[in-house]
Amino acid sequence: MPSPPRLLTLADLSVPQIKRLLTHSAYLKNNTLPWLSTHGSLSFKRANDLSLPSQSLFGKSIALLFSKRSTRTRVAAESSTVLLGGRAVFLGREDIQLGVNESLRDTTRIVGGMCDGIFARVGEHSEIEEIAKYSPVPVVNALSSLWHPTQVLATLLTLHEHANAFGVNSSTSTDASQKRLAYKVPLPELPSLTIAYVGDSANVFHDMLVTFPRLGHKLRVATPGGREGQYGAPTAVWDRVVELECDKNDGIWWGTNPKEAVQGADVVITDTWISMGQEAEAAQRYKDFEGFQVTEELCRVGGANPGWKFMHCLPRKQNEVDDEVFYGPRSLAFQEGDNRKWTTMAVFDAVFGHWDLDGDQWLTKLPNNEGAAENA
Amino acid sequence: MPSPPRLLTLADLSVPQIKRLLTHSAYLKNNTLPWLSTHGSLSFKRANDLSLPSQSLFGKSIALLFSKRSTRTRVAAESSTVLLGGRAVFLGREDIQLGVNESLRDTTRIVGGMCDGIFARVGEHSEIEEIAKYSPVPVVNALSSLWHPTQVLATLLTLHEHANAFGVNSSTSTDASQKRLAYKVPLPELPSLTIAYVGDSANVFHDMLVTFPRLGHKLRVATPGGREGQYGAPTAVWDRVVELECDKNDGIWWGTNPKEAVQGADVVITDTWISMGQEAEAAQRYKDFEGFQVTEELCRVGGANPGWKFMHCLPRKQNEVDDEVFYGPRSLAFQEGDNRKWTTMAVFDAVFGHWDLDGDQWLTKLPNNEGAAENA
Amino acid sequence: MPSPPRLLTLADLSVPQIKRLLTHSAYLKNNTLPWLSTHGSLSFKRANDLSLPSQSLFGKSIALLFSKRSTRTRVAAESSTVLLGGRAVFLGREDIQLGVNESLRDTTRIVGGMCDGIFARVGEHSEIEEIAKYSPVPVVNALSSLWHPTQVLATLLTLHEHANAFGVNSSTSTDASQKRLAYKVPLPELPSLTIAYVGDSANVFHDMLVTFPRLGHKLRVATPGGREGQYGAPTAVWDRVVELECDKNDGIWWGTNPKEAVQGADVVITDTWISMGQEAEAAQRYKDFEGFQVTEELCRVGGANPGWKFMHCLPRKQNEVDDEVFYGPRSLAFQEGDNRKWTTMAVFDAVFGHWDLDGDQWLTKLPNNEGAAENA
Repeated sequence: MPSPPRLLTLADLSVPQIKRLLTHSAYLKNNTLPWLSTHGSLSFKRANDLSLPSQSLFGKSIALLFSKRSTRTRVAAESSTVLLGGRAVFLGREDIQLGVNESLRDTTRIVGGMCDGIFARVGEHSEIEEIAKYSPVPVVNALSSLWHPTQVLATLLTLHEHANAFGVNSSTSTDASQKRLAYKVPLPELPSLTIAYVGDSANVFHDMLVTFPRLGHKLRVATPGGREGQYGAPTAVWDRVVELECDKNDGIWWGTNPKEAVQGADVVITDTWISMGQEAEAAQRYKDFEGFQVTEELCRVGGANPGWKFMHCLPRKQNEVDDEVFYGPRSLAFQEGDNRKWTTMAVFDAVFGHWDLDGDQWLTKLPNNEGAAENA
Repeated sequence: MPSPPRLLTLADLSVPQIKRLLTHSAYLKNNTLPWLSTHGSLSFKRANDLSLPSQSLFGKSIALLFSKRSTRTRVAAESSTVLLGGRAVFLGREDIQLGVNESLRDTTRIVGGMCDGIFARVGEHSEIEEIAKYSPVPVVNALSSLWHPTQVLATLLTLHEHANAFGVNSSTSTDASQKRLAYKVPLPELPSLTIAYVGDSANVFHDMLVTFPRLGHKLRVATPGGREGQYGAPTAVWDRVVELECDKNDGIWWGTNPKEAVQGADVVITDTWISMGQEAEAAQRYKDFEGFQVTEELCRVGGANPGWKFMHCLPRKQNEVDDEVFYGPRSLAFQEGDNRKWTTMAVFDAVFGHWDLDGDQWLTKLPNNEGAAENA
Repeated sequence: MPSPPRLLTLADLSVPQIKRLLTHSAYLKNNTLPWLSTHGSLSFKRANDLSLPSQSLFGKSIALLFSKRSTRTRVAAESSTVLLGGRAVFLGREDIQLGVNESLRDTTRIVGGMCDGIFARVGEHSEIEEIAKYSPVPVVNALSSLWHPTQVLATLLTLHEHANAFGVNSSTSTDASQKRLAYKVPLPELPSLTIAYVGDSANVFHDMLVTFPRLGHKLRVATPGGREGQYGAPTAVWDRVVELECDKNDGIWWGTNPKEAVQGADVVITDTWISMGQEAEAAQRYKDFEGFQVTEELCRVGGANPGWKFMHCLPRKQNEVDDEVFYGPRSLAFQEGDNRKWTTMAVFDAVFGHWDLDGDQWLTKLPNNEGAAENA
């Protein structure tokens, strides 16, 4: 029996594994949406003409072990689990014995003994490592102090879907393995992008650091104080960056001036300045991040690519980005939010449903997919 | 593509739409109950002989965006969604970022991007209006400061089911469209009833004001201070009453004396005197509502129809109605509670499953229903 | 129509009923596990070769009316309900009107009117009795101040599964009815065991008191002050012990010295010294239970059977049992935890799905089981 897989950060995945999860996300999205948009018609009869999404979680329960508030991550997990035939069990900090009456080790072993996967949102990253150590079933990180891997998959899927905004014709995909796997709408390839990140070095950004350069994109970063300052990358993160050689070949430029960071940027990304648990430092942080708000002016002065797109993992506060950008046509923030569902569905299908992040056995042989291959 | 429907108050529905939802509620109830009462037998084999309830929510997630405690509304939503093949995702005020880290607009857009319907219980009615404005999927009001539409559908279904208590033979239904749609037990028609409401003018009652007179019933109301007093109808509600001409043709009599209100009443209805959020005013309210408790004596002295029935949306406190009435044979309160499930199921099937409150396309063509029509 | 069954304590069940539930638990476990362990293969295709677990809760909702924190009981209920085709609705003390705005009687009637079973975790045992009195659907006790029946079923299933640790060859089962019912792996019979319980006389232990002696096992108990002391059995519990003659034939030995209690023990069991709600008494309790920690030394000095096994219902604190025993090879605590799922599944299938604790009609005629009988 294989040992249950863990997904704690995208640094744990190879480039082919990341691409496979993205291709599978697009495949699930394109196959599932027709099922859901049956309004105004005979939903049940139309459904018979459609192929059922993967039911790899049929009868299965996925534990959402969440010690922090969550909207996107939780709804993505719950709605995608039901599509895969299973059931997400939300276990919030008020509901269970964890931390009150029982150790993390024992709770993990028990929950993992009755559920078929653990999706955990924790405080310190060491907590998710302990869960990964003691769980008898697969574990996926739903956010920790250091990493947020499922968020960055949604960022990437959204970029691929908007490839034409970056000068790519959506029919130019030449990746044969993608064509074979995708159903009707293959995932468009991306050119090498210049991606600017201005703001705090937090968990979402850390997963970008270990991923974007490996996929051929260039990261331009500005944080107050720079990479080694107070808002720079923790050692545990930078060690993985170096290990994966993401800092080589001009993969990462890191300064202190947001205007410099957005120079030539195809995409500008930011995140909250005050993560959950940092509320006490709010006043100091607002002061330190002065000048970091993403606006049309900042990007014009800084020399971003005129067609630059904006992304944000949400929830968003006005400090980080003004309304004009956030609710305007440049913003892909809500499309990125929507894609949390489909990337989570792909991760759950692979990790919880098949214990297989490589997908060699099942991605090519799913019943739905056989039909897709014949029709392609 | 049609725009997603909203149901914020029954004032938004035409009389045929209301009747169609009631007919569909009865149809779903009569078809589904045999599925559920399979105790002591081969449930799986018997199930094969029954037609499956509508599975219009198969694979779908319905967000329960609840900022207030709920028992009936929540359990009705959860249990009916599972019968329709879907999954209700309960998002309480402790669980999500809403109000703590994120605006209602953004949360609505995100939740609506991953779920297939939003059922929202809010404080101020303006909140559900904002949800309705920004949601990409259908929205149903699960209670607001002004309205509570799904509750009054349950009141009406219960009245129809007890038509014989009001002098109607249950086999006298002559509505051909109802006969065609109903399965085995058609929904009995109601005569014109005199319905007394004594108590506070709150959200449930507001939906009665804009509905009962349009269905041919007469409302007799008593509130301390009358219609324009402290416990009278808010302007936003009375405007809809006037717009729908519910105040015409003696549709509504409104005084200050509960004894006068129950004169000739076939049904006597009350509600809590202290809605959620009004706990601070409790002492004053108890004083103001003195004499409003529904009792046998009140109705005898006031001259109610001797066979009067009692209804209450629950939860109930003894102040509003004494035990003799509440737990006695006049009370339809618990039957009304049971019907929360079936009316919610009809609303979810129509609004979330089919995006169609008129039901022209699907009510007559559901697979189950074709068989029903042939057997009728 | 039969009246809905209640399961408030194992004292309410006959010995054949208890055995049938255990046999059914093993049957469901052995049939269901292959469904769930389909990682690394074509889960959907393999599933077609397997018989579907009982779907007796298809379309049904089971209310989890929980006024206390819960991990095991809740996850067991949620994960087993989904396997039976239904949906557990978790109603925590923060979510519903109970205790804030509504009486237990009314909430019970309403929840029971919309759900198909109530699984309730309460404070005082009188609360579950009131729920049982007013519920129109079956009720199962998920823990009360006096009893915890579903926990002790898991203890028993685990003992049966480890019968070979107690000198029984697992192929020696000669019970014909078990052979007929079980699928592939019949439930091994147990010899008469000596079971030591050292600790507080709490709800889990109370269900052992009324069960183990009836199944032929001998209980050896030590509590500070003995049976009639502060940590002894409440009168309501001891009355059931006497009624069921569990105190006859040396069924129960009860002293004050843990070393004496473990003499000749095949199994040593303990539980928390501080149950939920007793946190204020912690200091006094730690003092009173000095010397009660289960250790290798205690059992060696006391003269336990050298192959003694350890069990604990969890959550566990180090005071009751040291790490060497708890995480060592003697410990069956986590296997017992895993079995919470399968015994709960059997109880739910019988009580909620079939309203039938005897199982005469359905246990022998389930579609799955027919095949099993032919293959046996």
